[in-house]
Amino acid sequence: MEIYSSHINKLIEELSRLPSIGAKSAQRLAFHIINMPEDQVQALAGAILDAKSNVRYCKECFTLTDEEICPICRNAKRDHKTIMVVESTRDLAAYEKTGKYEGVYHVLHGAISPMAGIGPNDIKLKELMVRLKDDVNEVIIATNSSLEGETTAMYLSKLIKPAGIKVSRIASGVPVGGDLEYIDEVTLLRALDGRTEI
Amino acid sequence: MEIYSSHINKLIEELSRLPSIGAKSAQRLAFHIINMPEDQVQALAGAILDAKSNVRYCKECFTLTDEEICPICRNAKRDHKTIMVVESTRDLAAYEKTGKYEGVYHVLHGAISPMAGIGPNDIKLKELMVRLKDDVNEVIIATNSSLEGETTAMYLSKLIKPAGIKVSRIASGVPVGGDLEYIDEVTLLRALDGRTEI
Repeated sequence: MEIYSSHINKLIEELSRLPSIGAKSAQRLAFHIINMPEDQVQALAGAILDAKSNVRYCKECFTLTDEEICPICRNAKRDHKTIMVVESTRDLAAYEKTGKYEGVYHVLHGAISPMAGIGPNDIKLKELMVRLKDDVNEVIIATNSSLEGETTAMYLSKLIKPAGIKVSRIASGVPVGGDLEYIDEVTLLRALDGRTEI
Repeated sequence: MEIYSSHINKLIEELSRLPSIGAKSAQRLAFHIINMPEDQVQALAGAILDAKSNVRYCKECFTLTDEEICPICRNAKRDHKTIMVVESTRDLAAYEKTGKYEGVYHVLHGAISPMAGIGPNDIKLKELMVRLKDDVNEVIIATNSSLEGETTAMYLSKLIKPAGIKVSRIASGVPVGGDLEYIDEVTLLRALDGRTEI
């Protein structure tokens, strides 16, 4: 449209592609950005490009990190024989914030969802199986308690148990249908304590 | 914190500086951006930098535009003797979308607010007075119907009327305390039709 300049329109268009940012919010953000000091705008654009080009998967647990091996996997004080399986790096962060979990993680980057056409090969599941060839005592499944998370948990359990490794699921302290990253730390810890073998 | 990589943390920090984006939203956006295809990330960062470096004020009406003179001010078919005064380019866009206003605009980039320490010299008011030296039939004041908007309207009226120019205010069809950009087009048009001399 004639009203805004093409550069403003382009910025509004790019911003409105982001999740949960509608047309009005994108417009508001665009004008805020145009009115920001030059150095802040540079910092924002730089942070976007830097994050995209420097962040990669940890070769061990597949969380998003700057280095080949993430700080958690490199930490010798952590219990490397206990692996907590989560759907995303944000879920890993939610458990890390409790400060009480001493094992390591495995990030699946998704969950099995037949409805969305996401099968076992579309998430980092083969990579988990490779890790289980080492000496592992327990796999704690901390996928979300959504339909997809539960499906993934059941699938994993059936896959891992025959190898003689203890498999547990975090307790239903997590509300059904809830997203792990939005749950308070007390509930997260209660769910960890109350985990049951499956 | 150790959990995320420094690049992710930096991106989350920059995103959470934006208005109405809290810590959780910033985190969600950051991970979305990291998982976006490379070209989309480049497009987003490029749009931010381009908008900041290419957008400037129209020399006539002070709206944000790409060129010296904006398309509205360049349009000979518009009535250049009728000037609508608005607080922001977004408010200008709200009236442009009605498609019925044929005059031109003047964007103040703010409103007088003694509480926030914003005086007549902090908005594009002197620039409006310069334009009024030309042949102008009417100044329509379309500032928001907030305390600041009303204060600005009264101030402008007292300043312009002695010059013998008709000054009008858009009608109170706009709900008191409302922001112009969020109002439906029918209400905006009703307010325009019902404008009264002040």
